[in-house]
Amino acid sequence: MSKRKSHINPNLSKNVRKRLQDTHSTDALLEGVRSKNRQILAQAITLVESTHADDRLAADALLTAIGSNKNPHCGRIVITGSPGAGKSTLINALGNEIVKAGKSLAILATDPSSAISQGSILGDKTRMADIGKSEAVFIRPTPSGNYLGGISKSTLETMQICEAAHFDFIILETVGVGQSEYESYKLSDIFLLLLNPGAGDEIQGIKRGIMEMADIVCINKYDTQTKELAEATEKKYKNAIKLLQNNREDWETKVLKVSSITQVGIPALWKCIDQFISSRIASGLLEQQRVANNLSILQEKAENYLLSKHLANTSIQTIIERNRAYIANNETTLLNALLGMYSELDKIFEDK
Amino acid sequence: MSKRKSHINPNLSKNVRKRLQDTHSTDALLEGVRSKNRQILAQAITLVESTHADDRLAADALLTAIGSNKNPHCGRIVITGSPGAGKSTLINALGNEIVKAGKSLAILATDPSSAISQGSILGDKTRMADIGKSEAVFIRPTPSGNYLGGISKSTLETMQICEAAHFDFIILETVGVGQSEYESYKLSDIFLLLLNPGAGDEIQGIKRGIMEMADIVCINKYDTQTKELAEATEKKYKNAIKLLQNNREDWETKVLKVSSITQVGIPALWKCIDQFISSRIASGLLEQQRVANNLSILQEKAENYLLSKHLANTSIQTIIERNRAYIANNETTLLNALLGMYSELDKIFEDK
Repeated sequence: MSKRKSHINPNLSKNVRKRLQDTHSTDALLEGVRSKNRQILAQAITLVESTHADDRLAADALLTAIGSNKNPHCGRIVITGSPGAGKSTLINALGNEIVKAGKSLAILATDPSSAISQGSILGDKTRMADIGKSEAVFIRPTPSGNYLGGISKSTLETMQICEAAHFDFIILETVGVGQSEYESYKLSDIFLLLLNPGAGDEIQGIKRGIMEMADIVCINKYDTQTKELAEATEKKYKNAIKLLQNNREDWETKVLKVSSITQVGIPALWKCIDQFISSRIASGLLEQQRVANNLSILQEKAENYLLSKHLANTSIQTIIERNRAYIANNETTLLNALLGMYSELDKIFEDK
Repeated sequence: MSKRKSHINPNLSKNVRKRLQDTHSTDALLEGVRSKNRQILAQAITLVESTHADDRLAADALLTAIGSNKNPHCGRIVITGSPGAGKSTLINALGNEIVKAGKSLAILATDPSSAISQGSILGDKTRMADIGKSEAVFIRPTPSGNYLGGISKSTLETMQICEAAHFDFIILETVGVGQSEYESYKLSDIFLLLLNPGAGDEIQGIKRGIMEMADIVCINKYDTQTKELAEATEKKYKNAIKLLQNNREDWETKVLKVSSITQVGIPALWKCIDQFISSRIASGLLEQQRVANNLSILQEKAENYLLSKHLANTSIQTIIERNRAYIANNETTLLNALLGMYSELDKIFEDK
């Protein structure tokens, strides 16, 4: 076990990294990934997460070898919700259903240790432990830089490795409050928002617009103590959802109540996800949506890149900051600040 | 009347423009604006909307003279809603209340002719006609380029002219479907979403996220025929609003039902708007929010400007388009397209 842990730990010492790199050729890594060998999967992901130059070379070689040899039928499930909504236990319960259905699953979790320990604490010890041990399941923490739900290069690389491993599903867990939540949404085939019963207050922590992104709103803790509250919350959200503009023309957001402890509602949730994804694979809509989302991500990343080049220019920075200060100190109107800024920027670009 | 029409018409012939320009000095224009002379107001706005070089000179001279001599207490009301929601008739009815309260009002309407004719058609002829004729009210079409709700330079300039004229309120009408609806929101002190009764279906035409921007959701047509439907719709929205994240910490979105024909609910709507704005002027929150919104608009405009400079570069365009095509034709993964794009862009910026 200690050896496996060292493979999963992203903070490998330089020596350990070097050794791994020497002993695993790109071919061996690729073969290991394709056979869902969890140690090699972990090692491959550690490689792509590394900023060490040698690791980057090995990572790039692996990614080139993987190429576009992806599994187009790997369903991408994004699960979001505030801390405390019970994402970890839901992922365990849902993962269990996925395994029972004979499917394989990669979980990119914000905190996989809590996913396992909470499962144990909450009483369904054997089953939860099974999730972590099952050969069909691979659990991986997303790098801490991604904790707030954004997608980084390494998230994309990790997903590509998991798709090369031909997992049937990837679950990407995010916390629903970050600036880049919309990017996680664009990486998903299905987007699930998990809420506590009585979530009218709790939703304050959720990013604006997330309700309209949700394909499924899942009310958790439909257990003995909060059963009635969960029922009332479900009703409220069912009514509210009707008045919001849905993201998909062919889908009306489902509101489902579940208990990750008693498993009530979990089979129905799994069925809903499975049908959503498989019908979209069959109709071609899933692929169509991925292409549209990828184009949108590419465009956004290109624009961010280009913008960062300009914003690194001190003269440009100074112009913007000066006009921001005029507005902040109420020294001019928005219009005059804009006109002044444009005219100063024009001069910089004329000189070029 | 024909002379007045020619002043309002933004498509003045060059000769007419020349004549107006010659006969009105900046001082005369400024004085006319400050005294709310509607002909001169119309002429000033026509000047700032013009792209003619001489007009621009005259417009800039006027705007410089206006300077930051704005009226900080001019409440900015943005009213949005799909075509057919009854924005024009609501604006007429609300404008009537504002005038009755002894306040002056500038209406920047998407289609002011319909505002007047619909009023006549709907039976309250005298009153509606009064709105257009009252010295306290100035109606101006927003340029057609702004039809979809965006703010252009000329919208800002027009608002600045109206503020220099010391109108107590400006109503900016938008249609709630445009890409830049968020910009109109940022120009507003209060944002009102107008809906038809039974708007569950109709809201499909409304831009996503607009519900969370609304300070007031107004259910229109609370008349004999659709009275019960309006009541049911009001109830639905009141429940739904509770589950959405509100934009303002100190305000819970109000849902009000009104009839622009029978005037039922219009005094209450006016009271709500008036109290919202005057309490925020008193607390300083209105000014604070304007500064924050202006900073956000400035930043966004700066970024758009900078981006447009890069995107005008053919080599950069080609790189982005090539990688878009790879994705669209499924020739590569998102990751590889991104890596390829970054590496090509890096080369361009290294060469610089």
